[in-house]
Amino acid sequence: MARIGGTPAGGVHRLALGDEDRRARDLFRAWAESLGLVVTIDGIGNMFARREGMDGAGPAAGPPLILGSHLDSQPTGGRFDGPLGVLSALEVVETLEERGVRTARPIEIVNWTNEEGARFPPAMMGSGVFSGRFDLADALGTVDPDGVTVSDAIDRIGYRGALPVGGRPVAAALELHIEQGPILEENECDIGVVTGVQGARWFDLTIMGEEAHAGSTPMSRRTDPVAVLGRLLVDAYRRIERDFAPYGRLTFGVLAAAPASRNTVPGRVTVSVDLRHPDDPTLDDMERSLREEASRACLERDASWRLEDVWRSPTVRFAEPCIEAVDAAAESCGYTSMRLMAGAGHDSVHTNDIAPTGMIFVPCKGGISHNEAESITPAQAEAGANVLLHAALRLVEPRAADMLSAPETRPGGTA
Amino acid sequence: MARIGGTPAGGVHRLALGDEDRRARDLFRAWAESLGLVVTIDGIGNMFARREGMDGAGPAAGPPLILGSHLDSQPTGGRFDGPLGVLSALEVVETLEERGVRTARPIEIVNWTNEEGARFPPAMMGSGVFSGRFDLADALGTVDPDGVTVSDAIDRIGYRGALPVGGRPVAAALELHIEQGPILEENECDIGVVTGVQGARWFDLTIMGEEAHAGSTPMSRRTDPVAVLGRLLVDAYRRIERDFAPYGRLTFGVLAAAPASRNTVPGRVTVSVDLRHPDDPTLDDMERSLREEASRACLERDASWRLEDVWRSPTVRFAEPCIEAVDAAAESCGYTSMRLMAGAGHDSVHTNDIAPTGMIFVPCKGGISHNEAESITPAQAEAGANVLLHAALRLVEPRAADMLSAPETRPGGTA
Repeated sequence: MARIGGTPAGGVHRLALGDEDRRARDLFRAWAESLGLVVTIDGIGNMFARREGMDGAGPAAGPPLILGSHLDSQPTGGRFDGPLGVLSALEVVETLEERGVRTARPIEIVNWTNEEGARFPPAMMGSGVFSGRFDLADALGTVDPDGVTVSDAIDRIGYRGALPVGGRPVAAALELHIEQGPILEENECDIGVVTGVQGARWFDLTIMGEEAHAGSTPMSRRTDPVAVLGRLLVDAYRRIERDFAPYGRLTFGVLAAAPASRNTVPGRVTVSVDLRHPDDPTLDDMERSLREEASRACLERDASWRLEDVWRSPTVRFAEPCIEAVDAAAESCGYTSMRLMAGAGHDSVHTNDIAPTGMIFVPCKGGISHNEAESITPAQAEAGANVLLHAALRLVEPRAADMLSAPETRPGGTA
Repeated sequence: MARIGGTPAGGVHRLALGDEDRRARDLFRAWAESLGLVVTIDGIGNMFARREGMDGAGPAAGPPLILGSHLDSQPTGGRFDGPLGVLSALEVVETLEERGVRTARPIEIVNWTNEEGARFPPAMMGSGVFSGRFDLADALGTVDPDGVTVSDAIDRIGYRGALPVGGRPVAAALELHIEQGPILEENECDIGVVTGVQGARWFDLTIMGEEAHAGSTPMSRRTDPVAVLGRLLVDAYRRIERDFAPYGRLTFGVLAAAPASRNTVPGRVTVSVDLRHPDDPTLDDMERSLREEASRACLERDASWRLEDVWRSPTVRFAEPCIEAVDAAAESCGYTSMRLMAGAGHDSVHTNDIAPTGMIFVPCKGGISHNEAESITPAQAEAGANVLLHAALRLVEPRAADMLSAPETRPGGTA
């Protein structure tokens, strides 16, 4: 999987709904079908690979347990952010097949469309439409920087399915993911039992100054929005780093000046803002700090600013039965574990709206993610997949689970 | 002319070698031919509209006096930056025709290709190739942000001429331009007698940090190049504004982060840098200050930086005979005038390499330029054109100039 869109530095470039994403989807489908799963696709391109349970099949069956994550990546992303959860779910089903374990409930392995939101913001799009939080038509109309819509991109790669998006019951959902942070590694823990996801707010911040000629306009007569940006950056980082440590996070991921000409003082600059904190009232305070610093920086140079809402994701608390299933699975497998909040948004935030949801984290090297250097060990992947299997079994009423009460001991085995 | 690429805010969008530039060129050619001028085009698209002198015609004639400027604009530029010099040169020739004035030397009105460099850097490209400072093949191979070459763009608009670029003698060159700065207005002067052009240096400054996930990477574990940029901006502006006032100028016109994803701490940011000063050793000091501040800002957060040369233009001194011709023309016409250095680069910097060159400035409102709000009055345009006419006559050995010894007095007349 990592070879699809693989970069020379060992990462992947597999933007949602591009050619690399199509190839990743094709491979996932081939692997799922080789396990006897039936793959269906919905109207936003979410893929579901289904294994029937024992209590009826098809429409007559009860609601499924959903296991999975996403196969798209950041522009220069890592190999594990997303695919670990999808491929481990395949491992879970393969193990059930090998051991002849039937479950009462159906299991569906999901590949959610456009989790990253790097090409088509916002992030977690496919799961957001599935859960009803996003409108399907809005999502399909989202454009990338080249003006291509999600709708056109889905058709171009041939992944618009006939299945309605969402609107059906789900028994529970589990997602295995790399932590993308340093906490598990620092605490030498094998498994993170995720209790929820911190709140996040995305904005576009624009500073308006006055266009002027770079050569002939004295510094004293400029209203240079880049100078204002400098002051704002320094003060905003200082506020967040000082007043909201260690959980507050502030990121300016995208910067642009207009008209973007070397020899023109820009008339305005626009930066994206990503603010996060596990506590919503504190996130309110962080947003207030940002607004204060923008006002202060603009006042100094007679510029003006506006902050436009792009996305708001309140703090999420996962379902206690799922948290307990993950906790118990880690313990029964003999792994060290700790409870923690996720720093990043995940599709599980959306499935949590419609079904009990839980997440399992494994450590990643140095906590580094959204980076080609993202890395985990085979043993860490194995631990995650084992906990995913055993937590899943606690949620799907296995009929022959006794043989799976302890993790695999064969060397190098994954599940 | 201002209607071609005219913007709702009263400016123009007429990027070099685009459709609007083609229409501006077509109009210039039509106007020139209606005056009986012969229009030729060289291999980089520079346009020359020629009026023969009395000392022979064509190859047998002596070297011409060149009058003109450029018709391309900034992405959101003003109506006068460039066209004033080309259109006033047409007025000069029209006046000579009306008054039956023959000159010993030929006069050529020039429209230089791509003075702005906004679409295809560097600026002043056509005159740079004409003067031999730039290589023709290099210039033709320059690409815009969409990957289109100058060569393809010239062919697409049909403006690749058969004339060799440069390599022929020029008697002298004069360019009328708006000041693009506030000095004439502040001094209530009609005419600026330009003695030269301040030096300019263009760089690309890149700050390298470490890509990381915006949600899960604690602030304390980031090497965020945007935070470094903030510190650099604050300190660099402070140094230039404090230590190099009133002439030193620093502009960051283009900003970009990579990978430019909202939820990823950028791995690097790149900004364009434009440094200017009328004195080259001081410009050296300014460059040194910028490098010091980049080092200091990076050290604070363990990031690194590099500064790539894009363009260097040393301070230029114009030819004394041309400066004197402009001075005398302003005085004979009864205008107030002052000598000053140009803050911006101009095609005259390049013609000055191969022929005695002079420039005439007229004030523009509030000193504002590279802005849709750029504005001059009809009386200011008239004064500039009158000085252009009379300075030109001092350089081309008029045979019947006596009738033009004082400026037009008929109301509303331009030349």
